[in-house]
Amino acid sequence: MTSNFKQAALDYHEHPTPGKIRIELSKPANTANDLALAYSPGVAEPVRAIAACPDDAYRYTSKGNLVAVISNGSAILGLGNLGPLASKPVMEGKALLFKRFADIDSVDIEVKATTPETFIDTVARIADTFGGINLEDIKAPDCFEIEQKLIELCDIPVFHDDQHGTAIVTAAGLLNALEIQDKRLEDARIVCLGAGAAATACMNLLVALGARRDKLYMLDRQGVIHSGREGLDPHKLAFANDSGARTLDEALQGADVFLGLSGANLLTPEALGNMAARPILFACSNPDPEISPELAKSVRDDLIIATGRSDYPNQVNNVLGFPFIFRGALDVRARHINEAMKIAAVEALRQLAKTPVPSDVLQAYQLDSLAFGRDYILPKPMDARLLVAISSAVAKAAVESGVARLPYPAHYPV
Amino acid sequence: MTSNFKQAALDYHEHPTPGKIRIELSKPANTANDLALAYSPGVAEPVRAIAACPDDAYRYTSKGNLVAVISNGSAILGLGNLGPLASKPVMEGKALLFKRFADIDSVDIEVKATTPETFIDTVARIADTFGGINLEDIKAPDCFEIEQKLIELCDIPVFHDDQHGTAIVTAAGLLNALEIQDKRLEDARIVCLGAGAAATACMNLLVALGARRDKLYMLDRQGVIHSGREGLDPHKLAFANDSGARTLDEALQGADVFLGLSGANLLTPEALGNMAARPILFACSNPDPEISPELAKSVRDDLIIATGRSDYPNQVNNVLGFPFIFRGALDVRARHINEAMKIAAVEALRQLAKTPVPSDVLQAYQLDSLAFGRDYILPKPMDARLLVAISSAVAKAAVESGVARLPYPAHYPV
Repeated sequence: MTSNFKQAALDYHEHPTPGKIRIELSKPANTANDLALAYSPGVAEPVRAIAACPDDAYRYTSKGNLVAVISNGSAILGLGNLGPLASKPVMEGKALLFKRFADIDSVDIEVKATTPETFIDTVARIADTFGGINLEDIKAPDCFEIEQKLIELCDIPVFHDDQHGTAIVTAAGLLNALEIQDKRLEDARIVCLGAGAAATACMNLLVALGARRDKLYMLDRQGVIHSGREGLDPHKLAFANDSGARTLDEALQGADVFLGLSGANLLTPEALGNMAARPILFACSNPDPEISPELAKSVRDDLIIATGRSDYPNQVNNVLGFPFIFRGALDVRARHINEAMKIAAVEALRQLAKTPVPSDVLQAYQLDSLAFGRDYILPKPMDARLLVAISSAVAKAAVESGVARLPYPAHYPV
Repeated sequence: MTSNFKQAALDYHEHPTPGKIRIELSKPANTANDLALAYSPGVAEPVRAIAACPDDAYRYTSKGNLVAVISNGSAILGLGNLGPLASKPVMEGKALLFKRFADIDSVDIEVKATTPETFIDTVARIADTFGGINLEDIKAPDCFEIEQKLIELCDIPVFHDDQHGTAIVTAAGLLNALEIQDKRLEDARIVCLGAGAAATACMNLLVALGARRDKLYMLDRQGVIHSGREGLDPHKLAFANDSGARTLDEALQGADVFLGLSGANLLTPEALGNMAARPILFACSNPDPEISPELAKSVRDDLIIATGRSDYPNQVNNVLGFPFIFRGALDVRARHINEAMKIAAVEALRQLAKTPVPSDVLQAYQLDSLAFGRDYILPKPMDARLLVAISSAVAKAAVESGVARLPYPAHYPV
């Protein structure tokens, strides 16, 4: 980031008023009669209705369109454990994206809780307030326990976006890239550099989609995870690879896919040179990828590279997923966001990338054309078709898998 | 409430969208560049700033203008303990009033917590999110412990409106009524029917303003609270009256003030007849007062009566207080809402009722005139002058009493 951009980011957050979201009234409150309906004495009626039938909270309050973005700030962006207060701009930013892309009312909640237990207790106690909970920037392995327990305790969708949002968008892009490179997921040798929340969720989803565990290599700071290593937590142990490769270079020999969820410049040109023909790189470290697209393409020209950045083609951006996944889940009042819904989102994203791009999207990115291929494996965030495409697919999967409490909405495509 | 009004209240809450508040963006989010500033990568800058200097949260996030309305639903309106979910319409209503009257962004949080300890833990852990906390509809005596502990744990204002908001508005109205009736608070025999959160706070504030404890009579369901009763909690014991009066009728003999925070029709015409000359009745039970103004005035014509209702003169309505008290507290970033600030709000309310009423207020209430006197002891909620009058008085008191972290705002009157 240039210092100009840094200052612009601070200015954007500070002026004309601090922060990025605000409250508005969704009902008239001009006359004394309005206020009598909104508060005393009128408000007693919806209170009585909800006391008699808890589901009426969806009828008379904002609950059904309200998602909390909740964090303890223990793993903020790439910045680490800076605590709850410092995470507030990120959580507010997420709330802004929920509203902007899916018209979901979203508020941020920062939780001062350093143990999974206290975090879980706190969130479970306030969960009634919301229609869904988006967990964010919680360090691994705590995030696994936290999400699992909250899913059990809450009857609303609880979704850790750093895990599943990342996994969904990554899987969609990767499947499209494999198709373009004429490879099959079942055959692909996949090397994942990084073993945190996002990496674990990506690997799990790829396995669910057909990837073979024995062809997966997951690396943490100590190298390839294998069953001979001591003290591995269960989430790592599940991806132990005992083929003998120990280093990134060894794992990448003949690999089809490099998935980087780690740090800047960790993929060397030499290692890239030793990958299989037509390799696929997801260099998702932010802001600086594991290898720059320029450098990668100077090493070989048969690759596809995706990054987390908006200034290169093939941006892997969670905003392609979470707003619409929650939109679909809320619209059918899903109890959970289950595997079927995640896979439906992957498929919908894949298909959207293959359909012709509308002119307003081209305009938004100042592009002349954009067609499915090496430089266009995922839809663009500004593509307004995402809303209906993903949300309806997720809603349909929720209904079909039995977690929906409402039927498939009439306003969605058949 | 008529069944028409009840249905109108349900319709108001349900249509066109459920609930009463929604989120809006306060910053542009149209272009890819906007999103780069709002979220990744730009958001890293305010995160870093806040990590280095926690007060920067007021600069770069919505914290400084954000008040949480928090309840466990253990004492909802006059309806009792219906739990957190059923309280949501009330809390959303309060959020609506914060926005409508003081442009404060406010969100409701319903907490599933039946013990003070779990409630306190939960709220303390999420408090960083907000610039202030308005506690609401929490049963006594839990509310006393909860508020006290949260004030100690949080460095933002924590205010239980059922206690202090009620006390402030009641005290302002009562002082004006005493003035009109040519009585002094120091001499007044005051009978308070009700011994819950609001009653306790009213009595405490009246004592702080000069009322004499030995002239106060507080009654719960068992009659006058006196030191001979067993098992009294400390909040009741503080108002034990050992003059010998045991019943409401006995206490009201020669009393100057009846303060009803109890239930419908509990004040009989006979007891009213035995009060002192020029009595003052605050019959604040909702929706039906302890005695109807019509009945009271048929008994004697030398009284002043105030109720909680908007369809009679002298409405005692908390909305005259809390939005502006928080506005003043937030504008000087007060650490707490202390006694000096509460008394400043009382004084400002009193004075406003004595100044000529603008024509737009008369219009809003379809009145030809309104002048300080028996039927106008408190400002009307739709009086736009409340905002500056109360907020500036509260801000000034905060600065002078040393709890403000910012100077008195330049946009307030000198």
